[in-house]
Amino acid sequence: MKKIILLSVMMLAALAASAQQRNNVVPSFAGAVEDFKPNVTNQRGHQYPMVNSQGAVRAQLRAPQANSVQLDIGGRRYEMVKDENGVWTGTSEPQDVGFHYYQLNVDGASVPDPGTIYFFGAGRWGSGIEIPSADMDFWQVKNVPQGALEEKYYWSKATESMRHCFVYLPAEYQKNPNKKYPVLYLQHGNAEDENGWGSQGHTAQILDNLIAEGKAVPFIVVIDYGQSQNIHLVGQYAPAPQPAPQPAQQGQRQANTGPDAFQVVLLTDIIPMVEREYRVIADAQHRALAGLSMGGMQTRRITIANPTTFAYVGQFSGGTISVEDVQGAAGFKQTNKLVFMSSGSKENPRVMEAAEALKGIGMNAVGYISEGTAHEWHTWRRSLYQFAQLLFK
Amino acid sequence: MKKIILLSVMMLAALAASAQQRNNVVPSFAGAVEDFKPNVTNQRGHQYPMVNSQGAVRAQLRAPQANSVQLDIGGRRYEMVKDENGVWTGTSEPQDVGFHYYQLNVDGASVPDPGTIYFFGAGRWGSGIEIPSADMDFWQVKNVPQGALEEKYYWSKATESMRHCFVYLPAEYQKNPNKKYPVLYLQHGNAEDENGWGSQGHTAQILDNLIAEGKAVPFIVVIDYGQSQNIHLVGQYAPAPQPAPQPAQQGQRQANTGPDAFQVVLLTDIIPMVEREYRVIADAQHRALAGLSMGGMQTRRITIANPTTFAYVGQFSGGTISVEDVQGAAGFKQTNKLVFMSSGSKENPRVMEAAEALKGIGMNAVGYISEGTAHEWHTWRRSLYQFAQLLFK
Repeated sequence: MKKIILLSVMMLAALAASAQQRNNVVPSFAGAVEDFKPNVTNQRGHQYPMVNSQGAVRAQLRAPQANSVQLDIGGRRYEMVKDENGVWTGTSEPQDVGFHYYQLNVDGASVPDPGTIYFFGAGRWGSGIEIPSADMDFWQVKNVPQGALEEKYYWSKATESMRHCFVYLPAEYQKNPNKKYPVLYLQHGNAEDENGWGSQGHTAQILDNLIAEGKAVPFIVVIDYGQSQNIHLVGQYAPAPQPAPQPAQQGQRQANTGPDAFQVVLLTDIIPMVEREYRVIADAQHRALAGLSMGGMQTRRITIANPTTFAYVGQFSGGTISVEDVQGAAGFKQTNKLVFMSSGSKENPRVMEAAEALKGIGMNAVGYISEGTAHEWHTWRRSLYQFAQLLFK
Repeated sequence: MKKIILLSVMMLAALAASAQQRNNVVPSFAGAVEDFKPNVTNQRGHQYPMVNSQGAVRAQLRAPQANSVQLDIGGRRYEMVKDENGVWTGTSEPQDVGFHYYQLNVDGASVPDPGTIYFFGAGRWGSGIEIPSADMDFWQVKNVPQGALEEKYYWSKATESMRHCFVYLPAEYQKNPNKKYPVLYLQHGNAEDENGWGSQGHTAQILDNLIAEGKAVPFIVVIDYGQSQNIHLVGQYAPAPQPAPQPAQQGQRQANTGPDAFQVVLLTDIIPMVEREYRVIADAQHRALAGLSMGGMQTRRITIANPTTFAYVGQFSGGTISVEDVQGAAGFKQTNKLVFMSSGSKENPRVMEAAEALKGIGMNAVGYISEGTAHEWHTWRRSLYQFAQLLFK
């Protein structure tokens, strides 16, 4: 419970800071080194936005009649300046390496930058920019055997609707029609959706490259939508009306392992669909659950509530599993092969102590810190890169 | 040649009209029936843009400091009006049924509408809206056996780069590990890319539904990128320098069957990759080529230049194949099982005569007119729906 409160407080603080900084309008960054290059997530043929060697972002927009245009990134709004052709240009302070959501603000309207392709996150489809990192090679498209990322619809009994997921199949899947594979179920964070891991997360590239180098065994990845407040359970699957919550008594852990809507859909629909439609080894030893941020917290709740269903557990910037969690969940320790907990170094890196504590009771626990990154996608790509090498071995 | 000139003139006229109408700023449509509903391509939770029973589009944008906001759709810019909260609202005249690209203009900046999801077309990622049609059921996601749309990278020898395509696999593909399937290669139009057919084209849904109803046999669809001026051939694949073109002599057909870059990549890389990576019947009788607009013109050039490679040919709003084309291409008639040519009723519907002419020399030719639509995606979805029912039977 303490951890959930801590994490909730951290998230609320981050949201409040972000809301405050919305009004944090600052001048365009004047200290930029003039070695800007086009951003790698630009639309074909677009020069802007650009990124320089410091990680500063320079955006441009033609808006001849506008009164004010701002570059809104990293919690600040940088004032852009208009030239004689009506083209506005502005530069941000240096950003962390990796992927960031951002937008432009034109006379009070927050709009996507027409220069980039678009990503779902922060609750909307909008612009994203990539600050190159020294280690970005691991998620590039390379000339190695290529798996495929399938877009797949399926019928959900629990919601009585068609749902939508992505399924990564390793390169050898189509060549070995009799071989069965382990599965990682991999979840997004709050205000994101099932598009993130395949797009800004580069899941297929990370896995293709690791498998080609012999660093990971081939496995399937299933990426679904987990924002429980938007998942409407029906009939027997809808939760019964709950009594008003009681304050937890001293020393008593509040029940926080009850199913949320995503847990119901995962167990009722997603896993059965995958085990029916794909060649899968359908047991706990070949089943992993991981997620980032909210998806990591869901991973904890679901694996503790279903302690013999998943042998591999990953929480990327998404809280930790405690010794008490394990001890309160009969069969978890016997089933589990790995608890992996990660965090950006600019987040609260309690994952290392949490891993040490689990090792103390004989678990295989791994903590991982992504250096120089915060609660963002480069932390999570690196986490997947590390986690994938430990799975199903 | 006449047909190419005619088509080019039509396209130039359309472009010129579109450029002229860019300056065609008109008041918000005052005659709208007030039965607006949220557009089906809206982002989750967004009410606007909306569409009414007349096919009028109503957009909204909050831009308190803006001087002018316009809804830019169908070649017109509708002036939006600001309320006391800084929210601009504007309504278009009725649009044709089906899918349309559009954007908002804020003080001279053309930007995507933050209300919709985004599509690639008209040379950019941007907003798209769906005007419901009486027949839209055929492309809906339904509870029928679902195929998958795979995103796939592969090495291209002809460009010495990794390329990117989408592959539709019918629902039964994964269940029949020894069965081989026919393949349709399906191309986009000018200023579009490989995303269109799977997204606004709804290829997977059209095929899943047809196969479930027994109206189409299961086949694979491969959707690649064909904008030849952006395909950079290298080494032995690069075209030799060409002599300056000579004016065609009277009565002599200008050679227009020479390879363009897409043709080289299709024959060198795409088809071999598909026949290597998927379970495919690798002969002309089980291979179709089709495309919309520019993709239809490429289909004509490629199938005439390679007359024994594809037995099924489809041109959707993309010109026609003539009796002279067939007679000049040795083996085309003997190999061909179907020439399908379609057009929106608001385009130039010469496809019917062209089909009659081919029937006159004993070909299986089909013309199809999409009622009430122009050079847009609903014409092409309907064309695929018709064409798919005639393939590989």
